[in-house]
Formats: sequence, structure tokens, C-alpha cells
Amino acid sequence: MTAASASPLRLGIAGLGTVGIGVVKIVQRHADLIAARSGRPVVITAVSARDRTKNRDADLSNYAWEVDPVALAARDDVDVFVELMGGHEGAAKDATEAALAAGKDVVTANKALLAHHGQALAEMAEAVGHVIRFEAAVAGGIPVIKALTEGLAGNQIRRVMGVMNGTCNYILTRMETAGLPYDTVFEEARQLGYLEADPNLDVGGIDAGHKLSILAAIAFGTKVRFDDVVLEGIGRISIDDIRRAGDMGYKIKLLGVAQMTGRGLEQRMTPCLVPASSPLGQLQGGTNMVVLEGDSVGQIVLRGAGAGEGPTASAVMGDVLDLARGLRLPTFGQPATTLVTPVAAVTSAPAAYYLRLQLMDKPGALAKVATVLGDAGVSISRMRQYGHADTSAPVLIVTHKTTRDAIDLAIAAFPATHVVEGEPVAIRIEEV
Amino acid sequence: MTAASASPLRLGIAGLGTVGIGVVKIVQRHADLIAARSGRPVVITAVSARDRTKNRDADLSNYAWEVDPVALAARDDVDVFVELMGGHEGAAKDATEAALAAGKDVVTANKALLAHHGQALAEMAEAVGHVIRFEAAVAGGIPVIKALTEGLAGNQIRRVMGVMNGTCNYILTRMETAGLPYDTVFEEARQLGYLEADPNLDVGGIDAGHKLSILAAIAFGTKVRFDDVVLEGIGRISIDDIRRAGDMGYKIKLLGVAQMTGRGLEQRMTPCLVPASSPLGQLQGGTNMVVLEGDSVGQIVLRGAGAGEGPTASAVMGDVLDLARGLRLPTFGQPATTLVTPVAAVTSAPAAYYLRLQLMDKPGALAKVATVLGDAGVSISRMRQYGHADTSAPVLIVTHKTTRDAIDLAIAAFPATHVVEGEPVAIRIEEV
Repeated sequence: MTAASASPLRLGIAGLGTVGIGVVKIVQRHADLIAARSGRPVVITAVSARDRTKNRDADLSNYAWEVDPVALAARDDVDVFVELMGGHEGAAKDATEAALAAGKDVVTANKALLAHHGQALAEMAEAVGHVIRFEAAVAGGIPVIKALTEGLAGNQIRRVMGVMNGTCNYILTRMETAGLPYDTVFEEARQLGYLEADPNLDVGGIDAGHKLSILAAIAFGTKVRFDDVVLEGIGRISIDDIRRAGDMGYKIKLLGVAQMTGRGLEQRMTPCLVPASSPLGQLQGGTNMVVLEGDSVGQIVLRGAGAGEGPTASAVMGDVLDLARGLRLPTFGQPATTLVTPVAAVTSAPAAYYLRLQLMDKPGALAKVATVLGDAGVSISRMRQYGHADTSAPVLIVTHKTTRDAIDLAIAAFPATHVVEGEPVAIRIEEV
Repeated sequence: MTAASASPLRLGIAGLGTVGIGVVKIVQRHADLIAARSGRPVVITAVSARDRTKNRDADLSNYAWEVDPVALAARDDVDVFVELMGGHEGAAKDATEAALAAGKDVVTANKALLAHHGQALAEMAEAVGHVIRFEAAVAGGIPVIKALTEGLAGNQIRRVMGVMNGTCNYILTRMETAGLPYDTVFEEARQLGYLEADPNLDVGGIDAGHKLSILAAIAFGTKVRFDDVVLEGIGRISIDDIRRAGDMGYKIKLLGVAQMTGRGLEQRMTPCLVPASSPLGQLQGGTNMVVLEGDSVGQIVLRGAGAGEGPTASAVMGDVLDLARGLRLPTFGQPATTLVTPVAAVTSAPAAYYLRLQLMDKPGALAKVATVLGDAGVSISRMRQYGHADTSAPVLIVTHKTTRDAIDLAIAAFPATHVVEGEPVAIRIEEV
């Protein structure tokens, strides 16, 4: 039996935005390549989107059209329901459930859906012997779900890290290179169309937090717990901090970190300092990077486009080809019913911290700050005081490894010294 | 049925060096994790190595011992033959063939075997409905075979690049950072045990060339053609060139490049200049990096340890878990009988070149060199002449994009100018 004569795998695509059209283009352009690689043709039988009259950059005339994605999901001539609508409630969820109920496999790029309902959907899929695939939901074109679930399956995972929101990394990089304040670059990004309709999904770290929670479930065999992700966006990062951190040899990144500790599962999506010379530190602009650490493999770094038509469609098609080739795994790498409910770590692992404070020009001021830090159990690794023409001067401190609690204790004690102006800034330095 | 009660996948491991023992340790340490992830236990039933009396860092007492790997490969209680002996002839080949003939799947870390006999072995495996897996053969712990074969399966691959011999990258990095000549660092590497018994496998580019030929077959759907790889080792790289290239903003790497061109399949494993600020340029020491470029996904960069017990065993176990989970693909991603025989490109794609020549201190010398280059069709992008106390001075030239033929034409014409001393050095600048 040749590839062309084998039974085709039939896709129904819901959502014809950038990514949906990207998938249509690949299926059309690479029909022969895909058939050669998967041993059978992959075809689109039906599509669905809200507005049929919209001008789209692909010929859809050979596909059945469904206004209702739930109807698409249940069609007899669809084997795989490809969900590219987005949103964690409403149509995307309804249609995904309908597809599973109708005995279809599902491929989705929807990180919000999985972050909020991944466990229930995975259980539903496995109860009916079907699978949900979601390579496109995390880090766009980077095949990180596959690397973590399959390639590193022989490892106990130690830590997963990532810069997984290209817009945030673009903003931070642009602030640094152009010397512009956050608000200006935020507005630029909005005008360039880089921001979600609700920009807090990007700059508040929510989108990246969704991705992190999915990676954590696979890495640690736990149920997805997006609500346990400690989220802090980039809105409070100043151009000053970017510059000062640079002076000390660091870059500021919105960095996701998930690790299993003695205190439970730690999931953070927060601004962090990383060494400027590290792969994460060198990451510029909208590119994504994921770092996977396993007990045998050591550190694996994956880098690529985290969004955009081609990269995201590439990830969707990777999943589709897996299904066409008969490669099927439980959603999170092991049966959903075997995933354990993790205890959320309430404190983060010890780390060095970057502290910036505005020190008044008074005798003994620095000694007072040092005493407060010492009393809180924080020891100083490096310190830099800047020249000043004013009555106060910025002081930068890189601490030795300590706890966030100790840092917060010190910050709470600064006002009583009467030598620190305003609110000190403390940013974790992640060892990468 | 629980994971523990499902039928176990039984491994027979041939070769108990660093990697073999690494695999034994993972199977023993992570029995529960592996069973949870693959839905069934993975066990070792038998092992084989030349010397049974050798002291090894693992308890092998529960495994049957075979002196002859061919006998191991045919045992009834072995489902997967794990070949970790190395070498492309003799025992490794005989035992792999025996395993396939006996109806076993094969997992191997043997790049030489696949580079020389991959096509025949893949055809043999597919004729009996079995598979050969070899993630560990290329770039150690980096799951690059999986990323290319599966994750990027929806892409037409444009180019594959990689620094895939850690020893060479260690030598080049060490020359640069310590300012030591090649011979000294080569000797250091030998004493540190970084070099193969035949060091030409490393520094001659053969080992890395094996890996490149395997990636090219998957990327372009072609038969493995190691003999078509243009090989040039690092033995002629001088500390001078490393420094001068650095002055111009480049690093020198032993870089593998495979791309399908209008002139045929180009496979090169040669020293190249890459921008110091690129991921490849920033790669230090023994770490490996592979760059995959697809028409949809753009550029994906994968980085990690290319050798060593843990990373290589991690890759072997990734393959083993795939088999335990029932994930089975043809060896090179599509049936071996459908792989086409590529035409080897006899010339490399146009590129900029770095030229270093020793120019005599004579009136009009530089003009003569520029004329020769111009006559050969090579135009100059940047030029730097160094101060000198001697009768000649080094001149560095970065050309605009040109062909290797044009460069060779110019080099052949330099002697007639009587202003160039010695042999000019020309190194390709790869656009990364």
C-alpha cells in the first residue's frame, strides 16, 4: 500500500486566524511531503470560523464550512479536531469536549484551556481512548512538549525554566536598547499589534504562566495547577533597573521557573535577573527559550520563535503528523488519573537577590543599611554606590544566597533607619 | 491493568562502557518513574561486554551475561537490543543484524554504524517490521533526532547546522581563552581523555561528519551518504586566526552544514566563522548545538551536552521509552525504500569568506592584492591591516558573498604578484 492510497487523516479546523490559515497553507503546500513522512495523506475536510465573508489568505473552497465549531467537532468526516480559537471558556471548551465525546483526537494551541481545564479534558480523552495534543500551546514552534514528554522521559526533571512570552521579552529588550521607559515601549508594542486584546495576559505574565503550568504537569507528573503559579508582570521594571542590572552583569527577563522542592511544587513567572552571558541572558526580542534540566541529561536549552503563523502552525502540524503516524500518548505523558495533586510551595527556593535602594547622603547611612541586612540574615556579595549631585544616591546590592522572607524582612526594616528613600526594588537572581 | 502488571519491555545491553553503565543506572534508579511514564516496566534481562571481570560502577548480578553480543541479540528474553559497543564493522554490525533477524527492535548510540550502513540496516529492519532508534548517536543528550523527525515533520527543512563534536569545540575554545597553540591544547585534550583512540575521528571531523550525514538523511528524505560529506578538520586552525577572527567579530567553529540546493545535497563539516554574538558563536567548551531551519518554523536552536554518561544514557532511554510506549517510526522518519539517492553538490553555496594573508612591505602591495581579488570576482567588504615591525604584515579581508571557486582562483593568482608571503588562509563565514 502506498502512502497515497492509505486512508487519509481528516482534519476539521476551528478558528481561521493567523495560525489556522498557517495550518491550511502547510497542508496544501506540503501534501506530498506529509504523506511521505506519515505514510498516509493528511487532508482538511471542514473548517469553522465566525465570519465566513472575511478575506483570508488561503483557498478554503474545497472544505465544508460550519458556523458552529461544536458541529464541526462532531462531523463524521473529521478524525482530528484542530482547535485554534483560543479562550478557556465558551466555544473552545465546548467544541473540544464535543470532539472528545464524538471520539475524535484533538490538537490545540490553546494554553489557557489546558491551564484551566487540562486535567478534566485529559481524563475525558483517556476515558474514551483518545488524545489531546498541544505542542503549539507552549513556546510556539519549539518542540518543547515533545522534548520534555518523550526525549527526556528517562530523566527525573529537576527544573524547567523559560522565557515564553515574546512580547514581554521584546518590551524588556527594547527598553534596554532604545533607553525608553516601560510605558513608551508598551504603547509601541500595542501599536505594532504585539499585545493581546487584554494586555495583562502578556505583561502580567498570565499567558506565560499558563505555559509554565502545563510544562510543570508533564515534568513532575502532577495535575496542572495554574492557580498555584506565582505571577508577577513586568510593569514595575524600570529602565533604571535594566541599566543597573546590566552594570552588574545581568539581564532582566520575565522568567518562568518550575521545580519540585522539599517544600512542594514551586511555580513562578516573575521578573528575574540572569547572567548576561547565559543563553537566557543573551535572548533578544521576541524569541522564546525553554531550559529543561534532568538528572541524567543535565541542561538542555531550546530556542526559537514563540509565536507567529509559521512557527505555531509548524507545531500544530507536528502533532497532526504524530497522529497520522500513530504516535499516541496520554495528554501529559502518563495517564491523567495517575497525576498527583501537588502541594504548592509557599516560599521560593533560596537565591541571590538584586537590591536597589536610594540612600540618603547622611553619615553612617551605608552602615545602617548593612546592619539591617545583616540582622535579617542577608549577606552582601557585591555592592555599588553611584555618584550623585543630589541628597541621595542609588545603591545596588547583590546578596549572597538567601530567602525571599529574609529580603522582605530587611525591606520592612529599612524605613526605621531613616536613610532609605522610597521603595527599594528587590529582584531574584536565578541561577541558570 | 496497572503499569506494574503490564508486560515488561526487556532490554539486552551490549557494551558496558560509560554509556552502557549509565543506562543500567537509569533503569535501576528510575524503575517506578519509567513504568509510570511508559505504562509498563522496563527491565534489563541480559548484558554483554568483552571483560566480565572488569570492575564496573553498577550491580549487574541479576542479568544474564553473554560474552558474544550476537548471542545476546538473539536471546528469547530480549525485546530490545541496545547496542552501545561502537564501531561500524565487526561485533556492532553483526549483532545489530542478528537482533533484527531475530525480530528485535534496536536502540543504538553508534553514529559510525548508521553513517556507513544506515540504509541497509533500515531496510532490513523495515522488512521484518522492526525499528532502529538512535537518538544517542547525534549530539548526545539533545533530543535532536526527535525534534527533526517528529517535531518539525510539517516543515520542508532548509538547512541543518551543528557543532556536534565537543572535543573540537573544547580545543578551539581553550586555544582562544588560554592563548595556546593547537598542538598544546590537542595534547592537553589527549591527557584529559577527551580524544578518541584515533584522534582523527574527533579533530578530523569524521565523528561529527557521521552525525551530519544522519541528520541530512532525515531532513531531506535521502539515503545516508557519509562519503559525500566534505570533511576538513581543525588541525590547521592557528591561534592567530582565532584572534584575528575575533577582532572582526567572529568565532571559529567546526561547523556541520547540510542543505539541499539546486546543485544537489551539500554536506560540509569544516571550520567556519560565525558571528561571535550568535548562539553558535557563544557556544563554549564541550557543549553541542544543533540548528534546524524549516520553511514554517524558522530557526530552532538546540543546545546541551553532546557526550558523557548521563546525557548519552538519557538519549538511549528516550528511545527505550518510546518503544515501551509503542511509539514506532521508520528509522529515518519515512520508509527506507522511499529515501532517494541524493546528488552530491560539488560546490558549496556562496558565502562571505575570511582571508588572512601576509603582505610584503612594498609600494602598491595592497593594490595588487585587491586587483587579484577583483579579477577573480571577489569583492572586499572589510579589510584590516596590522602594524608591523617586520618586512611583512598580516592583512585580514572579509569578502562579500562569493564562491569558493572564486576564492581559490584568487589564492592561485597571489604568488604571481610577489607581494604575498606564504599560504593565505581562507575560511568560510557561515550565515547563521
